[in-house]
Amino acid sequence: MVNYDLKSLLEELREKRPLVHNITNYVVMNFTANTLLALGASPVMAHAVDEVEEMVSLANALVINIGTLSREWIESMLKAGKRANEIGVPVVLDPVGSGATSFRTHTFRRLVNELKLSVVRGNASEILSIGSDYVGTRGVETAHGAEEALEAAKSVAKEIDSVAAITGPVDLVTDGERVVRCYNGHPLLGSVTGTGCAATAAIGAFIGIKNEPLEAAAAGLAFFGLAGELAGDRANSPGSFMISLLDALHEITPEEFQKKARLEEG
Amino acid sequence: MVNYDLKSLLEELREKRPLVHNITNYVVMNFTANTLLALGASPVMAHAVDEVEEMVSLANALVINIGTLSREWIESMLKAGKRANEIGVPVVLDPVGSGATSFRTHTFRRLVNELKLSVVRGNASEILSIGSDYVGTRGVETAHGAEEALEAAKSVAKEIDSVAAITGPVDLVTDGERVVRCYNGHPLLGSVTGTGCAATAAIGAFIGIKNEPLEAAAAGLAFFGLAGELAGDRANSPGSFMISLLDALHEITPEEFQKKARLEEG
Amino acid sequence: MVNYDLKSLLEELREKRPLVHNITNYVVMNFTANTLLALGASPVMAHAVDEVEEMVSLANALVINIGTLSREWIESMLKAGKRANEIGVPVVLDPVGSGATSFRTHTFRRLVNELKLSVVRGNASEILSIGSDYVGTRGVETAHGAEEALEAAKSVAKEIDSVAAITGPVDLVTDGERVVRCYNGHPLLGSVTGTGCAATAAIGAFIGIKNEPLEAAAAGLAFFGLAGELAGDRANSPGSFMISLLDALHEITPEEFQKKARLEEG
Repeated sequence: MVNYDLKSLLEELREKRPLVHNITNYVVMNFTANTLLALGASPVMAHAVDEVEEMVSLANALVINIGTLSREWIESMLKAGKRANEIGVPVVLDPVGSGATSFRTHTFRRLVNELKLSVVRGNASEILSIGSDYVGTRGVETAHGAEEALEAAKSVAKEIDSVAAITGPVDLVTDGERVVRCYNGHPLLGSVTGTGCAATAAIGAFIGIKNEPLEAAAAGLAFFGLAGELAGDRANSPGSFMISLLDALHEITPEEFQKKARLEEG
Repeated sequence: MVNYDLKSLLEELREKRPLVHNITNYVVMNFTANTLLALGASPVMAHAVDEVEEMVSLANALVINIGTLSREWIESMLKAGKRANEIGVPVVLDPVGSGATSFRTHTFRRLVNELKLSVVRGNASEILSIGSDYVGTRGVETAHGAEEALEAAKSVAKEIDSVAAITGPVDLVTDGERVVRCYNGHPLLGSVTGTGCAATAAIGAFIGIKNEPLEAAAAGLAFFGLAGELAGDRANSPGSFMISLLDALHEITPEEFQKKARLEEG
Repeated sequence: MVNYDLKSLLEELREKRPLVHNITNYVVMNFTANTLLALGASPVMAHAVDEVEEMVSLANALVINIGTLSREWIESMLKAGKRANEIGVPVVLDPVGSGATSFRTHTFRRLVNELKLSVVRGNASEILSIGSDYVGTRGVETAHGAEEALEAAKSVAKEIDSVAAITGPVDLVTDGERVVRCYNGHPLLGSVTGTGCAATAAIGAFIGIKNEPLEAAAAGLAFFGLAGELAGDRANSPGSFMISLLDALHEITPEEFQKKARLEEG
């Protein structure tokens, strides 16, 4: 087990309601905003070049997500990210679909090169697409098991100078040296669109409270995965699971989070 | 109490199914369309400069919402709004996030200057950001209590020559002279994204039936707030609350609306 | 009754999880992705000119939907569609709102002229807007009954060299010669936004498994309509109906699909 004080972290999140600025994809905007509201944060979605620098200045964290990417949005992501870097707002990236098309892979690389990222969260294929030993993927699906990808993940984390969070049946979070595994989760999370993106946003909420990337990434994944577990206790099909998931994000108490988070270091 | 015939108003809405043309933000498009369908109106979302004038000509009301704003959309908002003004289609505005960035605040001002708006609905900070005594806000959150903002609201309503509808624990609706308070609502509405935007769309549905801005704004807020109350009787968490809210919008009868709307003038 | 082996078709779909590339509208992106995931397919949404050709090369079907259309998206639709045509990926089109504005009607015609479409699904007004005997429509609503439109539909199917699928109280699917009627469905489907678009996406999932346009269109509509029926057994209002619909899409077994699909040829 890790010795994170998750109870205090969630208490502080619920009290401070960190403002999470999302530049994210069209598919998940609504679900991401509802996820952040349900767990106790304040979401704002803004993507215009005319306002992202001003908006991110108000925020406690910036979450960039490259699903439904188009060229004009990249400029906004870079502008917002650079301003966030200047003023010390942590930046979390979700490289949705990187590896599936060269446009997405190149954009992932460009964001890594031009920004200081605190956490990058994706499935194994997405995260590993940044490296030179990249293996092609199919759509946004996973081509690698998370566990086999551990050594690659550590090397990627070093390469991109960021915490890499690879989600799968077991989630891996690593800064290149330390590794935290998260065992929370539920299979039905894969049957609802945007749950990966929402988990990334949850990391944004936690890092907006405590700017410790490894801990915030582990906490975000554990919290979101725990909500999935609780939803899975109530629902067996994806529609009602999705609704129970939002309910659970709201209902988990700080004590319950501390008790039921299944994080292990090493 | 006010002496509005809300029963007949809702009966007429359900019979005529007013077409509400929305130029709104990405986050809430789906929820707004579902809100309008559930309560008995017909939604259409269209934002292209190539078609907004033709689309608004078919509509009974136009709802403009500046969340997830970008420069290209402003032209469409102005085109649609000017055409609506020419042909007598009422225009309702939701200045999401005005006050948070200068881009939004300037756009709000530009829409006020170039269009004749029937109703402007927002939280206190958003509405008051139009005035010269503007106080900065944080994201899309409220910086002022609704009640304290009453005098400012009346002066804003006069300044923008429109009904101002300020939502909060108690909603205020004013044309600068008359004031209607709406006491319907539920705290969980703040835990679901897009409920403010959907309330604005509900105003659009009612004004599409009866072009009396003060009454339509009060009716829309009372109806939406009542649905929130009924949802709150069934659900304690935001996911199931959101679903119960859509159900309630569909289930409220004209008689129930007349009986349970809590509107007071003065 | 038709003699389709729907049991095997659904078994194969659930096993192969066809990748359906959607270029669709903002309102329904989330619901469409959740529909495809729930029924057992893999959705991907991508619209950038920079990647649509590469993305569609990975896909088993392409679904194009012109709701919330803007000029820049048309280029992407054409690029993706042409590439799909070159490599034999079937293309399904949903001409949302065609007939309502000339921009949409012209775009529908352009897509028909420049692409080889396997299936075009819409309501009667949308489908018939392609023909020379076009009658204007109001928004995205239906101006014709589906049944009266049969002869027109057959002539349209011949004209556009594609299967035409016209949904309404009874759905009609025709290649210009053969006609299949689908009796599955539920009135509440009309109270949830994007159910028509999601039915089109379901056709995309089935045609991604078996490239027989008439059969795939009939199967997709029967499957989606059956899910609507099952949802209607559980829910009486649109919010809970929408959630039960997603659940039902996941729960229908191959045997149940074979037994409860109500398709008739002739």
